Amino acid sequence: MKKLALLLVGVAMLSGIVVFAAIPSRHVTAQEAGPIFVKKIPPGYRDWKVVSVAHEAGELNDIRAVLGNDIAIKAYREGKLPFPEGAIVGRIAWAYVSSDENNKSFGREQSFVAGSPTPAYLQFMVKDSKKYAATGGWGYSSFDKDGKPTDEAAMKTCFPCHQALKDRDFIFTRYSP
Amino acid sequence: MKKLALLLVGVAMLSGIVVFAAIPSRHVTAQEAGPIFVKKIPPGYRDWKVVSVAHEAGELNDIRAVLGNDIAIKAYREGKLPFPEGAIVGRIAWAYVSSDENNKSFGREQSFVAGSPTPAYLQFMVKDSKKYAATGGWGYSSFDKDGKPTDEAAMKTCFPCHQALKDRDFIFTRYSP
Repeated sequence: MKKLALLLVGVAMLSGIVVFAAIPSRHVTAQEAGPIFVKKIPPGYRDWKVVSVAHEAGELNDIRAVLGNDIAIKAYREGKLPFPEGAIVGRIAWAYVSSDENNKSFGREQSFVAGSPTPAYLQFMVKDSKKYAATGGWGYSSFDKDGKPTDEAAMKTCFPCHQALKDRDFIFTRYSP
Repeated sequence: MKKLALLLVGVAMLSGIVVFAAIPSRHVTAQEAGPIFVKKIPPGYRDWKVVSVAHEAGELNDIRAVLGNDIAIKAYREGKLPFPEGAIVGRIAWAYVSSDENNKSFGREQSFVAGSPTPAYLQFMVKDSKKYAATGGWGYSSFDKDGKPTDEAAMKTCFPCHQALKDRDFIFTRYSP
């Protein structure tokens, strides 16, 4: 009887682990099922305040500004997590190009600037805990230079990668004072 | 007589060239004489809109956001030159650092982000055609992370370098849509 009880506990624990480990893939499945991709560019985003800047080398090869709407910027500055409802974090990515005109002035190759819009020019994460519950409370969106949403197959890679940052409410970029 | 005339023309041309070439150093001299360096950080600059972003490699080794006050942004967007009175263009420069946490998510070394403030953390160009007439109508300023102005010796290098861009009203950074 004691052996049976231990076995049951063992099975229960194992199931627990399995259920826990399954959460990520269940989320991805939910993402596939629900209308979770945001298809609208937030109006006025180009006037938003700066969160930070970055350069992604490799295949992306972009230089980017990460911006936030007022709700997001306020939360960033106050160090509040999770981000409140209505927060939107966006990023604009331009091709990373060497600036001949700047280098001429400097007398050396040192200046890299923002060129043309990249294929995934604009991306946004929109906080709505209920609507986007399946993807950590954030809806994801991505647009090319003409405002056309990126295809859904590519969009399915957003959450699996951001998911690693659950303790920072799924946001990679830190605020730069 | 013809030879003398030619000689005079030659001398006149040469003088012309000499006078023309002397303009930059005359400006630098004026810069030394007048109180042209701005010693105050413009209030609210961190809330300004983005002009563009850049990475300066080499000794600077920074990643930067170039921002503009409303007057500057309006002029940039309308493509108006010269910039109107009261325009201020600023830039924030952070150390250019590799992001271990981002690279871990990407599975490769590709992400470079904004680190600590650089020695010349904040720089601004303030348009006042009369006050800063000696330096193309722009007053220059530079501050470290504690808001302390950069020493004047270093400040004297601003205008001689920006001077090359007279036809763009002395501004290096182009607006990135």
